[in-house]
Amino acid sequence: MKQQTSEQLLKQIHNYIEKLSYSREPVQLYDPIEYVLGFGGKRLRPVLMLLAYNLYKEDVETIFSQAAGLETYHNFTLLHDDLMDNADMRRGKPTVHKKWNPNAAILSGDAMLILSYQFMMNDCPADCVASVMKVFGQAALEVCEGQQWDIDFESRENVSVDEYLEMIRLKTSVLLAASLKIGAILGGASDDDAQKLYDFGVKIGLAFQLQDDYLDVYGDPVVFGKNIGGDICSNKKTYMLITALSEASGSDKDELQKWISLSEFDDKEKIASVTGIYNNVGVPELCMNKIDSLYAEGLRLLDEVSVSDDLKENLRHFAGVMMKRKL
Amino acid sequence: MKQQTSEQLLKQIHNYIEKLSYSREPVQLYDPIEYVLGFGGKRLRPVLMLLAYNLYKEDVETIFSQAAGLETYHNFTLLHDDLMDNADMRRGKPTVHKKWNPNAAILSGDAMLILSYQFMMNDCPADCVASVMKVFGQAALEVCEGQQWDIDFESRENVSVDEYLEMIRLKTSVLLAASLKIGAILGGASDDDAQKLYDFGVKIGLAFQLQDDYLDVYGDPVVFGKNIGGDICSNKKTYMLITALSEASGSDKDELQKWISLSEFDDKEKIASVTGIYNNVGVPELCMNKIDSLYAEGLRLLDEVSVSDDLKENLRHFAGVMMKRKL
Repeated sequence: MKQQTSEQLLKQIHNYIEKLSYSREPVQLYDPIEYVLGFGGKRLRPVLMLLAYNLYKEDVETIFSQAAGLETYHNFTLLHDDLMDNADMRRGKPTVHKKWNPNAAILSGDAMLILSYQFMMNDCPADCVASVMKVFGQAALEVCEGQQWDIDFESRENVSVDEYLEMIRLKTSVLLAASLKIGAILGGASDDDAQKLYDFGVKIGLAFQLQDDYLDVYGDPVVFGKNIGGDICSNKKTYMLITALSEASGSDKDELQKWISLSEFDDKEKIASVTGIYNNVGVPELCMNKIDSLYAEGLRLLDEVSVSDDLKENLRHFAGVMMKRKL
Repeated sequence: MKQQTSEQLLKQIHNYIEKLSYSREPVQLYDPIEYVLGFGGKRLRPVLMLLAYNLYKEDVETIFSQAAGLETYHNFTLLHDDLMDNADMRRGKPTVHKKWNPNAAILSGDAMLILSYQFMMNDCPADCVASVMKVFGQAALEVCEGQQWDIDFESRENVSVDEYLEMIRLKTSVLLAASLKIGAILGGASDDDAQKLYDFGVKIGLAFQLQDDYLDVYGDPVVFGKNIGGDICSNKKTYMLITALSEASGSDKDELQKWISLSEFDDKEKIASVTGIYNNVGVPELCMNKIDSLYAEGLRLLDEVSVSDDLKENLRHFAGVMMKRKL
């Protein structure tokens, strides 16, 4: 079977999405959509879907519309999340509610969500449509649930590691997992394979998000592309902070509680002190161990997918690329 | 064929929607959805869908999920529109962004939109699903376009009657029309019948919205359930105002322009004066004529639907109920 690398697939789906035109009326509705989809980004979800499909079939171009649906859905969530978080910038550009206004962000986001369903339905084979839409709809709803948990956790003191992992499973992993599963279903995979690929996606997604949390503290600011320490300043209850709170003792524990309770502080000082406590407690090692074990669990699930091992090489490579970035 | 009246169908679909439970986690996401769907309302779209289906088939209970999908979609639009309009009350109760907060309105609305697709897909027969979802998706997107035009018109001076009618076609009519068409498709109607019912819905929807505009000026406040004159106070470019601006002359025209340009005024005084100008110009008659002709055009389209005339009686009666209310 003719297989394509993730780089080749990315190029094609990127071109496909670039060529989608939203130059229709009313322009105030469609301009923000074109703007957001034009940001680019890594197109992780389309590429994962195409790689999963390519385990079973060659004609990846037949499901570009579904791939665009996943990307459109993902960008809809970023648009509305940025509005809810009142974030000013996304990928170095002003967010829609800043460049236009909050109502534009609401309504254009709604239209994007509807468009994502249209892409997903577009020429979807009759024997797949029910299962594809079921997987997509469930993931779409779970992403909203994850976002709500994330909001809820901001005002809670006692978030456990398990609760945090469940939140990021919903907010981040299930859409990556659904991308793989939908690709597999469209490729004609067995139910068992489709589910294995989904479960692989969940594990990789968790590892990916934990790594993002890790990089927010220990990443190279130039490579990471975001300011370092943002999560520390905002007391975001990440794996790192939750672990530190449960593992720290003595003066480390007191010091950490002090920094969390301060409403006014010097950012640099807080970041340096909290990072120091993380180091004392061994948080980076605990976090890296968790990332490694989730990643390894994911790869074991991929091993169990019933296609010959060499066909999985592109997917395995791409999972590696996702995890290696910026470390 | 066993047929049911709109009252019988309303009772059933009302019970079906009441029984839907959203008592799942996270409660902050699902409570607002349960709250909004519990408002009640006239369930126009489900009833229209069931009436159209019942022209062809008896087992209306098999499409209650799709009917709930239309109602969920409609309530999603109210939820987000109320947020965008910063409206405090809906059907005598605080709106979601007031009772909870704006982010809850955004996110719960998003989840409702996703749920509406799930209801629509749920047990949708394989031979109908593509056409049903196409009609639904197009209507859903067009409602957003209509809302955007409505927002655009607020800051425009020169809105024509045709532009206004196109805006309310998108914002109000297409979902009523799609409800009828989806019911027809699910009932196994011919393409021609399904389209005729859609076109009937467009005409009835336009008549219905123009009547709403009319009632905002000339309705009985107790029966209408909203304050009279709200559109006049906000200079909303309805059929009434646009017609008055183009038809008024002399002192009526000057007086109307004056009231529009005033940023501070006594509500009662403005409402009385502008209503007086409408009366001088003959706006109520022009509006009622337009409503009557749209309604008659709608009924003629219904006449052309290829089922025996007596089967159409319930649908014809319901269109009459929609139009007679509160006048």
